[in-house]
Amino acid sequence: MSAIRLSPFFSGVRCFACETPHDPRTLLTVCRQCGMPLRVDYDLASIRWKRSDVVGRVPTLWRYREVLPLIEGDETTLAEGYTPLLAVEPNVWVKDEARNPTGSFKARGMALAVSMAKHLGARALSAPSAGNAAGALAAYGARAGLPVTVAMPIDTPKPFFDECELYGATIHRVKGTIADAGKFLREHGPKDTFDASTLREPYRIEGKKTMAYELVEQFEGEVPDVILYPTGGGTGLIGMWKAFNEMAALGWIDQDRRPRFVSVQAAGCAPVVKAFDEGNEKTEPWPNAQTKAYGLRVPSPLGGFLCVRALRETGGTAIAIDEANIASATAELAAKSGIDVCPEGGAAWAALRQLRDRKFIGPSDRVVIFNTGTGLKYR
Amino acid sequence: MSAIRLSPFFSGVRCFACETPHDPRTLLTVCRQCGMPLRVDYDLASIRWKRSDVVGRVPTLWRYREVLPLIEGDETTLAEGYTPLLAVEPNVWVKDEARNPTGSFKARGMALAVSMAKHLGARALSAPSAGNAAGALAAYGARAGLPVTVAMPIDTPKPFFDECELYGATIHRVKGTIADAGKFLREHGPKDTFDASTLREPYRIEGKKTMAYELVEQFEGEVPDVILYPTGGGTGLIGMWKAFNEMAALGWIDQDRRPRFVSVQAAGCAPVVKAFDEGNEKTEPWPNAQTKAYGLRVPSPLGGFLCVRALRETGGTAIAIDEANIASATAELAAKSGIDVCPEGGAAWAALRQLRDRKFIGPSDRVVIFNTGTGLKYR
Repeated sequence: MSAIRLSPFFSGVRCFACETPHDPRTLLTVCRQCGMPLRVDYDLASIRWKRSDVVGRVPTLWRYREVLPLIEGDETTLAEGYTPLLAVEPNVWVKDEARNPTGSFKARGMALAVSMAKHLGARALSAPSAGNAAGALAAYGARAGLPVTVAMPIDTPKPFFDECELYGATIHRVKGTIADAGKFLREHGPKDTFDASTLREPYRIEGKKTMAYELVEQFEGEVPDVILYPTGGGTGLIGMWKAFNEMAALGWIDQDRRPRFVSVQAAGCAPVVKAFDEGNEKTEPWPNAQTKAYGLRVPSPLGGFLCVRALRETGGTAIAIDEANIASATAELAAKSGIDVCPEGGAAWAALRQLRDRKFIGPSDRVVIFNTGTGLKYR
Repeated sequence: MSAIRLSPFFSGVRCFACETPHDPRTLLTVCRQCGMPLRVDYDLASIRWKRSDVVGRVPTLWRYREVLPLIEGDETTLAEGYTPLLAVEPNVWVKDEARNPTGSFKARGMALAVSMAKHLGARALSAPSAGNAAGALAAYGARAGLPVTVAMPIDTPKPFFDECELYGATIHRVKGTIADAGKFLREHGPKDTFDASTLREPYRIEGKKTMAYELVEQFEGEVPDVILYPTGGGTGLIGMWKAFNEMAALGWIDQDRRPRFVSVQAAGCAPVVKAFDEGNEKTEPWPNAQTKAYGLRVPSPLGGFLCVRALRETGGTAIAIDEANIASATAELAAKSGIDVCPEGGAAWAALRQLRDRKFIGPSDRVVIFNTGTGLKYR
């Protein structure tokens, strides 16, 4: 196993909850001690890497190579990341993740997860999904030459299934939510595949965290005041929280400067909002989860405790949006901006209005809204 | 009108056919003398601009500012262009235009057309479309704050209509092809709108030509041997042909080095193939045009004579692909590459196979295939 090459700055993998170290030269899932998600660490002090060093590099997430686990040439890529930041009104920008391969932010995580899984010897891949993750896994599996099995709720819109079929994935339609799809795969799925579920492997976070590096680059070294993030599994939120901490250690941003993170959820599935509002450390499974913002239909996120921690540490908050407001805000933002907004992005736009009313967001705050994917697959 | 700012390198607009000059400070359509498309010229000798000068600029088509008509700040943009070039097999790359706003290469042309129309005082916009151009015009119109009217063949797939609706466009469903849709708009459309039809205004070519600048940048100054281009209206082909000539004048590429351009059409609508094969200078209207590669269903392209000229001047060719081969090649390329291939891109992939069999393309030729848009809207 010693022949496996990894980034020289990669300093190990430890548990987010109990800090138990794990061998990064093996296929990792969750912590073998406590079952919680694993964290990827770098020797940030030795990197000596400035923001200006990335100028002129490829416009993909691989421009942040120094804080990614793989050496150049070992990645499975469809040129993901470095998505545009589009001004939509004074002090408000949309980070348009629809511009990734397979039209969503899931491409970032899957690019890293599939790259590492292939590099470490996986022969097949699987994951449950609320929609976009399945398409991304199917596409990266196709690119890597690895067979893919996915499971999605049966009422997920047809374009999500069609996309997986296009890339040759084996597809299971499961009654219930992503939680049921995951249970189905564990009980009835193929046994010889690597499980690329959200936070059940350590590298999807590493892909997602690059969204924060991009923001700091796109704001020319500044940090936005508020980030409105549609939160399902929460990998992107956790990843960006990790990335801002890394950037502080690297000297890219001030030690104490962080954006206030806001988890935006659907009223029909808001476990992070509930835990945050009630002062709990952990989320509880949300019963009868329902929303047409399918990416937010994650009733029991494994990383819920990390989302809550990120919101509290950054002075952020959490907010639930009802279905009618999600729909009207999606339409409003699209017609105003020319961006193909997905319902999750629409929820974040609705959250901006409500958080301004509550004075959580002031007129001089610089706000970033994440449009996590293209609306095309929801129509 | 003299207050209108344009690029200092912009040297005028002349007719592609008869060279009659036109005033670029007015809203231009086709040549007032002969009705043919207009060409935008730059004072290339005075630019003194190297390929290395664009390193580090924004990863959009605006990085080629020196050969675009507008000064920074005057553009209507959704961060279009600079799409990835993805290797799919030895010596073969896919230029994935699906990664543009609205998921197609039409964004490039519409970004320039809408930017110039707004800059020059247009109050409303319209265009007929085979599908993707309508969505792009609707999105850029929304971004510019200008009302948009589009007309499409009634049997265009629903996602193309839904997209226009999302951006608030007025939509007409017309029996027939894009030719009938254009006729409908001229006879029954709003009278006070600027017509952004393919080659009926001079700037869509300027947006599309940036594909060639990107190729030369992505190949680090080299020119590919063959470009397989799905050809409907042909703006991209004509634009790239113009761009390679500009790059030769700028000293970016050798004076005599050009890729061989190949027009890929559908067997059910192949006017450029027919004109090329029969040695004609101009295309003739194709009767009963039919193909599910909707972007290729352009029976009477205004710029057909320019496409034929570009193919002949570069030692290229033209090829028609039947529907069964379009469908199977689309599926094959997607499953092999992880790219969401549209039928037009699939046609280009089929063309590669056939042109290798014919020995038009040899094993050492470096080939670029254009995937002109996402397959999502066709499913």
